[in-house]
Amino acid sequence: MTASQTRTAISPTRREDYPEWYQQVLKAADLAENSPVRGCMIIKPWGYGIWELLQRQLDDRIKATGHVNAYFPLFIPLSFLEKEATHVEGFAKECAVVTHHRLEERGGKLIPTGELEEPLIVRPTSETIIGHSFSKWVESYRDLPLLINQWANVVRWEMRPRVFLRTTEFLWQEGHTVHASEKEALEETHKMLEVYRDFMENVLALPVIVGEKSAGERFPGAVSTFTCEAMMQDYKALQAGTSHYLGQNFAKASEIRFTDEQGQLQYGYTTSWGCTTRLIGGIIMTHGDDDGLRLPPRVAPQQVVILPVIPKPESAQAVLAYCEQIKKHLEQSHAFGLPVRVHIDQRDLRGGEKNWEWIKKGVPVRIEVGPRDVDNGAAMVSRRDKLHKDKESVAVAAIGPKVSQVLEEIQQTLYREASAYRNAHIREDIETLEELRAFFGGSSEGQEAEGGFVLAKWCGEPGSESLLDDLKVTIRCLPLKQRNTTGRCIFTGKPATTDVILAKSY
Amino acid sequence: MTASQTRTAISPTRREDYPEWYQQVLKAADLAENSPVRGCMIIKPWGYGIWELLQRQLDDRIKATGHVNAYFPLFIPLSFLEKEATHVEGFAKECAVVTHHRLEERGGKLIPTGELEEPLIVRPTSETIIGHSFSKWVESYRDLPLLINQWANVVRWEMRPRVFLRTTEFLWQEGHTVHASEKEALEETHKMLEVYRDFMENVLALPVIVGEKSAGERFPGAVSTFTCEAMMQDYKALQAGTSHYLGQNFAKASEIRFTDEQGQLQYGYTTSWGCTTRLIGGIIMTHGDDDGLRLPPRVAPQQVVILPVIPKPESAQAVLAYCEQIKKHLEQSHAFGLPVRVHIDQRDLRGGEKNWEWIKKGVPVRIEVGPRDVDNGAAMVSRRDKLHKDKESVAVAAIGPKVSQVLEEIQQTLYREASAYRNAHIREDIETLEELRAFFGGSSEGQEAEGGFVLAKWCGEPGSESLLDDLKVTIRCLPLKQRNTTGRCIFTGKPATTDVILAKSY
Repeated sequence: MTASQTRTAISPTRREDYPEWYQQVLKAADLAENSPVRGCMIIKPWGYGIWELLQRQLDDRIKATGHVNAYFPLFIPLSFLEKEATHVEGFAKECAVVTHHRLEERGGKLIPTGELEEPLIVRPTSETIIGHSFSKWVESYRDLPLLINQWANVVRWEMRPRVFLRTTEFLWQEGHTVHASEKEALEETHKMLEVYRDFMENVLALPVIVGEKSAGERFPGAVSTFTCEAMMQDYKALQAGTSHYLGQNFAKASEIRFTDEQGQLQYGYTTSWGCTTRLIGGIIMTHGDDDGLRLPPRVAPQQVVILPVIPKPESAQAVLAYCEQIKKHLEQSHAFGLPVRVHIDQRDLRGGEKNWEWIKKGVPVRIEVGPRDVDNGAAMVSRRDKLHKDKESVAVAAIGPKVSQVLEEIQQTLYREASAYRNAHIREDIETLEELRAFFGGSSEGQEAEGGFVLAKWCGEPGSESLLDDLKVTIRCLPLKQRNTTGRCIFTGKPATTDVILAKSY
Repeated sequence: MTASQTRTAISPTRREDYPEWYQQVLKAADLAENSPVRGCMIIKPWGYGIWELLQRQLDDRIKATGHVNAYFPLFIPLSFLEKEATHVEGFAKECAVVTHHRLEERGGKLIPTGELEEPLIVRPTSETIIGHSFSKWVESYRDLPLLINQWANVVRWEMRPRVFLRTTEFLWQEGHTVHASEKEALEETHKMLEVYRDFMENVLALPVIVGEKSAGERFPGAVSTFTCEAMMQDYKALQAGTSHYLGQNFAKASEIRFTDEQGQLQYGYTTSWGCTTRLIGGIIMTHGDDDGLRLPPRVAPQQVVILPVIPKPESAQAVLAYCEQIKKHLEQSHAFGLPVRVHIDQRDLRGGEKNWEWIKKGVPVRIEVGPRDVDNGAAMVSRRDKLHKDKESVAVAAIGPKVSQVLEEIQQTLYREASAYRNAHIREDIETLEELRAFFGGSSEGQEAEGGFVLAKWCGEPGSESLLDDLKVTIRCLPLKQRNTTGRCIFTGKPATTDVILAKSY
């Protein structure tokens, strides 16, 4: 080990080099890695385990609000994209194009043959192909609302990929709904935004600011886009999920029409909303520390790891039997309404090495068990949200309820810490463009920028925010929670009509 | 309704035209449909609901046997396929090839641009790309066994697609494992075959014959392939799942090597195994009748539908409140260890129409509730495995346990009926090639073939079964359960060494 590694398990630290710290946590926690296909990632079992837990809990909420899952094709005919010009303009330009359907061997090489009459696009999002189905499924007002969700992989060619945050292929859910009125469709858009907020805050322990996107940041083709914005520890915003009200735009492009109660043919009002594997990046960057990942217990593939400590071979049997007994106790206990997930790490490795591996992987609770614990009928419990050397001896008889309680506490701690961090880095007192530029690092060289979110006043004039383009600062959202702002716009000096959150972002 | 439809809900019947009956069940049960992309299907909510239940129960079994899920890229570099010649020869020729990564607009048309240096293949199966990862993940015997599973979409260009049975894109799970010895890898191959058998028989109520594939039917590149073969109601076999022992073939192509306990570098022994959305086709074709789908309760998205019967508007409130009460009772009851899944169909449709819709969708239990039932504190229960007019009045106080019991009975009935049907159509007494040809429809015109499975004697000579190629009859498997066959091979007349199952197939 180098000197740096003895201080923290991850090197560099967050302060030293945040992007590199992120890469090192991915590696140390064995979450995911780059693949030989440029821009695509391999999600390793520990990372995919997080995704499965996240997916199931979000899926439950999507179903509880009346939606059902379905599955649409991976491929979209090129002509479908030509129908929705705005959408393509903003979206579909960087995508994977399938042009052939056969390989032939010629001199040891495989050559693409069987050229398609019409190229196919690997879906970057499914509005157009789902719209085509909806146009056939919807006939009457009795068919509405149509509330569909899909879990799928999508592809958007990325020039600067980063695992989880921005990859050519990623996994997501995309909800697509049709309603009989603008009012209902807007209600749906807000309902799903609230489902996302609740899920992010209560399951992922990610505090988010919910709000509307400005025109410049809207989903291509949408009437309005709503977003959940989280702050990472480098003060950048992560757009964690979006919910779009599409008006009749896509319904007109796809001919989604219904006969209303008066017998009139009307275009439907549609919405779409999505969350992706990027959320895992958000978990890492919000909760991780200089020793690696810290997982919210609700999405930890293992919530508890039991580490047998066997100083002499003759104590092995007794210690392992005792570990099994603790495991059973815990599996009969519950946290968040589900049985506790427990793993005994019996690998033949040094205790310290094992312990640090699980710290880096972010497992919420570690339980060490040695011969003395067997004699005492107890075990040493450590928490990932406390100092690693803090250990509490817990009697086996009490270990189930104790661990359940600790898991719920850790979930709350992570949320509380993330909220405090974010709140401490939202500035509400910046009133001039000059101050703003200085805050975001646009001042004279050598001076370190403070960074964070700025809650500022805006006049709403499209494009006026482009004054910060050189700093890569954008309007993240117009928060739903407004202060009834008066005064002057920070960009134009005109009368302000709304609050906005300004930040750099992923 | 036509005269034919008053006799059965599905027209044509299975006897009249089995392939068309299948298409009509897909439609009547609203399971899936063809998409505008040739060969790709759209899985509608009722069909996808079956997939979700199937997936969760199979996934639980895959995890219970020590496997973990991960996710690998959708795309495979062309050069990866060139490494495994046998595999490509048998597999990867009909596939989707991505050659460009951008679209540009020219005169209102979108044109593929940004040609890739190396084309990418949309995965037809992931052996090669997963093998590449495994070669980096595996270093020492301590890393073995490596037990990974993936749920994903795959693409194999299909010239004659049929929804669920054979589609260009389909959903599946693919297990990929690496072991230190041939013995362990073979054990794994058989373990997963048994997981499949248990899952198919006990969850899907599909009786299957497990056995080994003959050389001609092996997975390309495998040393041995094992299969679960089910009989559909047209007597054709459906290959429902396969488990492959790959020896060191893929390990050598992908350089998967490990240092053994003696410090020697060895190639690993690998396996792979998969089940697909084709299983839904198997459920339809095994359990469906002339009135539509019949769903095994374990995979029914709704196990019970409650149908309010409201002759006069003034009784609506009382009937609906009573339906809600029954729903609550049922949701607190369990079947197969899970809460009963119940839906109240409140749509404003005629009662008969609703009732028939649910019959066609295959919901196991229907409960009709009218004003008289409210007065009597009872409800009329009908089962999809009995005559539609058979209704039993059940007291509300007893309805929970009653429905739980009925669901378990229906699950058993479907399995028992399918087993009886299959067993009645396996012939063990066919001893000559002439009889065999006649049985499979190769005899003089006008005479109807009997059809079914034939358990015959075989000498094991590769290619000898090609005598039935014109009838599209193949060796489905060499059943694991052998009769210690002696006598003559039905093809060559040479001494027989094994039993085989012969059949036409999907």
